[in-house]
Amino acid sequence: MKCRICGKPAVIKLRAHNIALCPEHFVEFVQKQTAKAIKHYKMFEKEDHIAVAVSGGKDSLALLDILTELGYKVSAFYIDLGIKHMDYSKTSKEKAQAFCEKKGVKCLVYSLPEMFGMGIDEAARKSRRTPCSLCGMTKRYLMNVAARDLEADVIATGHNLDDQAAALFANLMRWDVSYLAKGYPVLPAEHGFPKKVKPLVFLTEREIAAYAIVRGIDYVRYECPHSEGARFLVYKEHLNAIENMSPGTKRRFYQGYTENIWRFQIESPDQCEKKDEEESPMKPCKICGMPTAAEDGICSFCRFWRPDEVKKIKGQE
Amino acid sequence: MKCRICGKPAVIKLRAHNIALCPEHFVEFVQKQTAKAIKHYKMFEKEDHIAVAVSGGKDSLALLDILTELGYKVSAFYIDLGIKHMDYSKTSKEKAQAFCEKKGVKCLVYSLPEMFGMGIDEAARKSRRTPCSLCGMTKRYLMNVAARDLEADVIATGHNLDDQAAALFANLMRWDVSYLAKGYPVLPAEHGFPKKVKPLVFLTEREIAAYAIVRGIDYVRYECPHSEGARFLVYKEHLNAIENMSPGTKRRFYQGYTENIWRFQIESPDQCEKKDEEESPMKPCKICGMPTAAEDGICSFCRFWRPDEVKKIKGQE
Repeated sequence: MKCRICGKPAVIKLRAHNIALCPEHFVEFVQKQTAKAIKHYKMFEKEDHIAVAVSGGKDSLALLDILTELGYKVSAFYIDLGIKHMDYSKTSKEKAQAFCEKKGVKCLVYSLPEMFGMGIDEAARKSRRTPCSLCGMTKRYLMNVAARDLEADVIATGHNLDDQAAALFANLMRWDVSYLAKGYPVLPAEHGFPKKVKPLVFLTEREIAAYAIVRGIDYVRYECPHSEGARFLVYKEHLNAIENMSPGTKRRFYQGYTENIWRFQIESPDQCEKKDEEESPMKPCKICGMPTAAEDGICSFCRFWRPDEVKKIKGQE
Repeated sequence: MKCRICGKPAVIKLRAHNIALCPEHFVEFVQKQTAKAIKHYKMFEKEDHIAVAVSGGKDSLALLDILTELGYKVSAFYIDLGIKHMDYSKTSKEKAQAFCEKKGVKCLVYSLPEMFGMGIDEAARKSRRTPCSLCGMTKRYLMNVAARDLEADVIATGHNLDDQAAALFANLMRWDVSYLAKGYPVLPAEHGFPKKVKPLVFLTEREIAAYAIVRGIDYVRYECPHSEGARFLVYKEHLNAIENMSPGTKRRFYQGYTENIWRFQIESPDQCEKKDEEESPMKPCKICGMPTAAEDGICSFCRFWRPDEVKKIKGQE
C-alpha cells in the first residue's frame, strides 16, 4: 500500500476517498478536511479568536492541534467535572493541560470540585438527577463562561462525523423534529451566548484516532464512565457496517442532512417561515450575570450549583 | 406464553405491541392493523372496488385474504413475467390462481410470454437493460391496464412495513428528496391513472409470514431470483437489529416519516408551495390508448414491447 501522493509506504487506507496515505500526507489530509468544513459551513475567519473545549480525549486535542497548525488564534479551556472513577477527571485534565502547554496554548480550567466542593457524581446523587443531564447543563454554562473569560469569538468542540451521524440517525428514527432542526454544525451567537462550531464534522472517529497517533498526541483512551449509553453506540455500529458496505455513506448522510435541515425548521406546510426560536426575553442572571430566560431571573446553573445564594436572593425579594 | 385476550396458548409474541396472542386473536390483530392503516391513510371506502396485485408471495396473498375477510369488494390480477429460473413465474401463478379460486375472487392474468412471446429475462438480455428496471416499468403499466380492465377504483399492493422502512432508510442515507417526497402509502389517482395504496404498511414481514401460516395460505417461499439486491436486504437487517433492541422503532420510523413527508415536498425554503408534479400534458398513447407524457405520443411500455407497431406508426407520420 503506497501513498497516493508521494508513493512512500502508506499508513492508512481511506476507502470513502479511495486513497491510501503516508503519515505526512495523512496529516495534511486531516487538516485540509477540517479547513474544508470550516469554510463550507462558514464557521469562523482567520482573524477570529477560537476557544477550544478540551476534554483530554482524542477529538478535542486533535482539534486543538489542527487549528493551531492551520494558523488560527486559539485558546483552550478544560472543565473539571470531578469524576473520580478510575481517576477519569484527574487524568483527563493532566493530558489536556500537558498538550496545551506543548502547543503553547493558554488553557483555563473550570473545576467543579474547586468551585463547589463536589464533582458531578456527588451532585447528581444528592439531587437525584442523572449525571448526564446535569453534566450537559453544567458544561453548556461553563463553556459560555469560558468564552466570556477568554474574550473568544467562537467556541469549537471536537464532535466528529460519527457523533453527528449517530445523533442524526437516532433523531430520524424518532422523527424528533425539534432536534432535527438544530443539528447544524454551526450554532449562531444569540441571546448573549457565543457562536458554537464543530470543525471535525467531515472526519470519522477512525481518522481522528489515526491522526492523534501519527501526531503523537497523548490523550485519555477511555470514555467517560457515564458515556452516551448503549443505544448511541449501537447506532454508530450500524452506521459503520453500512459505511463498510458503501464507503462514503456516513459523510453523504450527514452532509445531505445539513443541506436539508431547513426542512425541519419549517413550522407547518402552510406557514413557510422558519420556526421562531421562542423569543423569550433574556436578562442577566441575578446571581452570575450570564443571560437567562428563567422567569425568576436565576439561571439553571446558579439554581443548581449556588443554592445558598438563591436562598439569599429569594429572602431579599 | 398465553394469549393476552383469551388466555389460550399463544403462538406469537409481538414485542412492539407488548402482547402475545393465540392464532384466533392474532388473525384478528393482523386484520385490525390493516383496517387501521386503511382508515389512517384514507386508502379506500367500503363501497370501493379494489384490485389486488397478487404475485403468489406471502404479502400479496395475505392482503387478498385480509381484504376479503374485512368485507371489501376485491378482484385480483397476476402479472406473469415469464421468469423460468426454478419455475419461478409458473409456480407463482399457480399459487396465486389457486388462492384466488379458494377465496372466490376473480383473477385476471397478464402474461408477457403470451402477449409478446418472451419473458422479462429474455427481453432484458436482448435490450441490454437490467431486468429490474424493465420489470418496474412493465409492472407499473400492466397494473394500470388491470385496474382499467377490472374497472377498479384503486390498486392495492402487498408492500409491508419492512419494505417501506428499508426504502425510507436507503433514501434518507442519500437524502434522495425526489424519492422521499413520494413514499406515502397512498398515491392519488392522477393523469388518468388509478389510485394506488399499500394497506400492509403497519405490519412487519414476520407478522405477515405468521399470518399466512396460521391462515393456511399456500405461497411461493422463494424470492424473485433478481430480487432487490444485497443493499436493500442489509438495510432490512439493520432495521431488524434496531427493532430487536427497541421494539416499535420500525413502525414509529415509518409513521413519523408519513407525518413529515410534506417537508420533502417543499421546493425551497423561500417558496413554501408543494412541488408541482411536472404538469406534463398527458395524452392517450397512439398505440395502446393508456395515458402518456411522451412527446411522440408513444408510451414507454409500447416503445419497448411493441416495436413493430412503433415502426408502423413512425412510418405513417
